[in-house]
Amino acid sequence: TGEDFSQNTIVLRKGQRLRPQDLGVLAGLGITEATVVKQPVVAIISTGDELVEPGQTLSPGKIRDINSTTLAALVRECGCIPITMGIIKDDLDTMQRACQKALDIPSDMLLLSGGSSVGKRDFTLKVLEEIENTKVLAHGVSIKPGKPTILARKDNTALFGLPGHVGSAIVVFYLFVRPLLRKLSGEECSTGLQTITAITTEQIPSTIGREDYIRVTIAKDEDRSSYRATPVYGKSGLLNPLIKAEGLLVIGRDVEGLDKDEQAEVLLFP
Amino acid sequence: TGEDFSQNTIVLRKGQRLRPQDLGVLAGLGITEATVVKQPVVAIISTGDELVEPGQTLSPGKIRDINSTTLAALVRECGCIPITMGIIKDDLDTMQRACQKALDIPSDMLLLSGGSSVGKRDFTLKVLEEIENTKVLAHGVSIKPGKPTILARKDNTALFGLPGHVGSAIVVFYLFVRPLLRKLSGEECSTGLQTITAITTEQIPSTIGREDYIRVTIAKDEDRSSYRATPVYGKSGLLNPLIKAEGLLVIGRDVEGLDKDEQAEVLLFP
Repeated sequence: TGEDFSQNTIVLRKGQRLRPQDLGVLAGLGITEATVVKQPVVAIISTGDELVEPGQTLSPGKIRDINSTTLAALVRECGCIPITMGIIKDDLDTMQRACQKALDIPSDMLLLSGGSSVGKRDFTLKVLEEIENTKVLAHGVSIKPGKPTILARKDNTALFGLPGHVGSAIVVFYLFVRPLLRKLSGEECSTGLQTITAITTEQIPSTIGREDYIRVTIAKDEDRSSYRATPVYGKSGLLNPLIKAEGLLVIGRDVEGLDKDEQAEVLLFP
Repeated sequence: TGEDFSQNTIVLRKGQRLRPQDLGVLAGLGITEATVVKQPVVAIISTGDELVEPGQTLSPGKIRDINSTTLAALVRECGCIPITMGIIKDDLDTMQRACQKALDIPSDMLLLSGGSSVGKRDFTLKVLEEIENTKVLAHGVSIKPGKPTILARKDNTALFGLPGHVGSAIVVFYLFVRPLLRKLSGEECSTGLQTITAITTEQIPSTIGREDYIRVTIAKDEDRSSYRATPVYGKSGLLNPLIKAEGLLVIGRDVEGLDKDEQAEVLLFP
């Protein structure tokens, strides 16, 4: 086998994920090694004096670190390698040492999460700014949830400051982090999420001037040819909506909410 | 966090794949260990005196083993663990010893591929029949390609005899092997492939009395709301169609081919 390609034919192109059948074709051509893009390494740091490891007993005023587990799994879902650095205290020195350690791995990306309150948000920014040769590229994005997102760059490492609430961090991950990880993996710089058009089952409020991402459940319509989306409300730190939601309904920045039975685009979770 | 679930609430149900956010919820509830379904182990054997390892130099009359590489990647794509046992000669004794070794791993499934010609097909059947306590459940299925498929069972291990041509083996994998692997993994017993409706760009012949699976390329139609499917012809042992095809167009057993511009169901490769 193999004679069905003529000399000098391009069999596979750069920038495509090798499917099982593509690996089979390489085997058939006697090619047992191929140069591929390196899997990006992503360091993950959760910040906050109030955080404890999931396995620890909770004492008053403490909450369990959800973001490290969630972000690591989201990174793995993209085919990248997560390295969780644990929980770091809200202290400039400790934080900067942890960031330096993450950069030294070396990592292609650093995800810092926490600091949702206004004071803490500035703190994450300060930590990132004071790392030598770091350039802050974005501080705040006009989406909801996810507004306090920070993006910085040091050499070829991308540094993200993600919201502390897990529900918001997931939205920012899918919209901004995942496209970059896909690009670093040699794929298209897009979310890579399946998009469907769905009909709203109820009115959904939204504010003009920012893009809203509403968590929704999806149901196939009776006639099986269309989808219906129902919002799952709940603060972005709550667990129940996380379990229920199947995707994110997008409301454009110039739209003031949707009525019942309106069409909207929904990004489906993988 | 975590207080948003009341006592005795079912948070996650058996039989669902844990998404990143589900793992986050478990972390938030302080659950650091969960009982999950064991990843199925799949032993893979390629049979044929004419086969050589992909890395070896071809001598006259020899062909490279494509199926081991392809099937291992297909198994991995299902989240299962492939164990390739290498190339086994067409000799009853050698084959039976190899099968016994595969069963002893222990494996949840054995994929034997090769033996596409009539004589060899009977040989694979004989090998499987003579393993103690094996029950042959199916010998031949009315699909094309994939007719000579054999399914047998020994205790809790499924034994498949797959066609030797890689193009046919892939079809049988997606239609029969993958649903079983998904079921063994605790998921729904289905192909799990995305299905779309596409319009044929040309006439596609087919024979009444068997289901046809035609390899196709897919293009978005100009109006972007529909898909067009174009058949990729070529013998099932050729490599070129493997690279090109993006899915399998289904022609039902009572249909005598499709005209140009007819609607058909297409199973998309993952």
